[in-house]
Amino acid sequence: MSVETTRIVLASRPVGAPQPENFRTETVELPAPGDGQALLQTLYLSLDPYMRGRMSDAPSYAPPVAIGATMVGATVSRVLESRDSAVRPGDIVLGYGGWQTHSLESAAYLRKLDPDKAPVTTALGVLGMPGFTAYSGLRNIGKPQAGETLVVAAATGPVGSAVGQIAKLEGARTVGIAGGPEKVRLLTEKFGFDAAIDHRADDFAEQLAAATPDGIDVYFENVGGAVLDAVLPRLNSFARIPVCGLAAAYNATELPPGPDRLGLLMGLILRKSLTVRGFIQTEFAPTQMGEFLDQATGWVADGRLAYLEDIVDGLEQAVPAFQGLLVGKNVGKLLVRVAH
Amino acid sequence: MSVETTRIVLASRPVGAPQPENFRTETVELPAPGDGQALLQTLYLSLDPYMRGRMSDAPSYAPPVAIGATMVGATVSRVLESRDSAVRPGDIVLGYGGWQTHSLESAAYLRKLDPDKAPVTTALGVLGMPGFTAYSGLRNIGKPQAGETLVVAAATGPVGSAVGQIAKLEGARTVGIAGGPEKVRLLTEKFGFDAAIDHRADDFAEQLAAATPDGIDVYFENVGGAVLDAVLPRLNSFARIPVCGLAAAYNATELPPGPDRLGLLMGLILRKSLTVRGFIQTEFAPTQMGEFLDQATGWVADGRLAYLEDIVDGLEQAVPAFQGLLVGKNVGKLLVRVAH
Repeated sequence: MSVETTRIVLASRPVGAPQPENFRTETVELPAPGDGQALLQTLYLSLDPYMRGRMSDAPSYAPPVAIGATMVGATVSRVLESRDSAVRPGDIVLGYGGWQTHSLESAAYLRKLDPDKAPVTTALGVLGMPGFTAYSGLRNIGKPQAGETLVVAAATGPVGSAVGQIAKLEGARTVGIAGGPEKVRLLTEKFGFDAAIDHRADDFAEQLAAATPDGIDVYFENVGGAVLDAVLPRLNSFARIPVCGLAAAYNATELPPGPDRLGLLMGLILRKSLTVRGFIQTEFAPTQMGEFLDQATGWVADGRLAYLEDIVDGLEQAVPAFQGLLVGKNVGKLLVRVAH
Repeated sequence: MSVETTRIVLASRPVGAPQPENFRTETVELPAPGDGQALLQTLYLSLDPYMRGRMSDAPSYAPPVAIGATMVGATVSRVLESRDSAVRPGDIVLGYGGWQTHSLESAAYLRKLDPDKAPVTTALGVLGMPGFTAYSGLRNIGKPQAGETLVVAAATGPVGSAVGQIAKLEGARTVGIAGGPEKVRLLTEKFGFDAAIDHRADDFAEQLAAATPDGIDVYFENVGGAVLDAVLPRLNSFARIPVCGLAAAYNATELPPGPDRLGLLMGLILRKSLTVRGFIQTEFAPTQMGEFLDQATGWVADGRLAYLEDIVDGLEQAVPAFQGLLVGKNVGKLLVRVAH
């Protein structure tokens, strides 16, 4: 059996915010699977901020998507055909087929999902890369202690919402930051943050100060920009800053005007004995993903780890949905339902 | 018995580089020691970059020296009189009497020195706070591995020279940075660095690149400024940056002009999974000073840990010597011999 796949490829590298003309949709025939391969039909495609980085050829931790290549991305897919004993037709698997309707993948890299344990979409969010980013960043770097104060932005997103809830399970006081009243309401009502702040408020910095009367011990950094600026003067000695993303700067085309605060940040790190540590979850996945899945699947089942999904229908919605993601339009983990 | 002490007090807070008028010399009578106290005669006063920070009232990890108070500093002193069983007249001790000829101190905070084990001046340098700063920063943060490349500036100084030699004992390749041909020669000849670079060279960044063909795995940060700028693009993924000082900025009166590179530094931390960690050696001293002294005293005795001292004579030399320290005029650990 061979099938056609409709896919979205990178047509050109964006300068600033990605535009529709940076993408191109094409339909091609996939070859029949070879030994060890499986032919998959995409059910859900994950859209994540890191994809903006892969569209550029600036130095990064991962190679850029080549011009003309399929946009990368994790998928939940159905196995149509398999030439490997690891998966069988009908299995639902976590794969990396990217922005397309069908894909041919090495069966060895697929993870079989059990729909009875958790909805399969969670493998792309709370029980997937974003959830593990939260878990591993906290466990290895942030290390929130009972009674400490943790701050995270993009806090209704799949990383931020998990950060807040897992830190809460450790006994920390949690302050979530989001944009707009709807998201801010979700922070306390759905995700159990102790305090919630709208970063769009004119007095955002004052609100953050009021919400962190004992200073900040852990700042889980996923946005940078104005939120980081407001956090810096609130950091306590020995605070930890896991850095998993800087979404506010992903579309930036040049450095902001001066003065140059690089030395100011270094001075703060010195005077307050701060730990600032960048990480990608792949660093910790080989040794800690198993225990994360065990633990977090239980938390999701008993309601201690809530999550939100924002699902758009149809691969043709991928580009506008991704554009919206980069400016914070989605609420919860953004997924594209490609097929039923 | 009571004695007069001649001391240097802080007369006013400097703006930029400290000037003679920021200090005042006065002679006062010390009261007789009370219970638990000892009366000391200062033999050697340590001069260190951190003292610049204590002259300002900007937020820091330690309170500033009050106007009119004696400038702080570690000393090697002779016990003249004691009202505590811990020390006896004639003992040589490490104390914290500051910039003065005599001091009254709590005996509980003094450490008796054994002149047979190492010259007593080493308690202020290679076997004191600077040496322990090197040791604890490497052990807890820098963690140099065999075959990795370590870079340190101010590398003929008491911290930098110990950093290079201890990292070398761990099997790292070491690159030292200093100012001027005399110091650069010392780096390889006396301290065993694998490569040595003059930060005053016009092509400093190119020389650093040539000396670190495999990139930089540990940058022991004690100066900041132009050295940090040249180091940043050379850092390898998972590099560690212990930050114990930023001497290049201590006299700064305003932030440098833009662009603002704060976000650029955060982006580098993210993309390269860097660890940037500020520290003061006092964090680690309670648990690790004992083993450091055991180990480093042996290294000094058998020549594996070389050191240099730059001794000026007379308390009246403290101010000009300190001014010189802040612009890198001394070669080796700077001490003032206050009495014989």
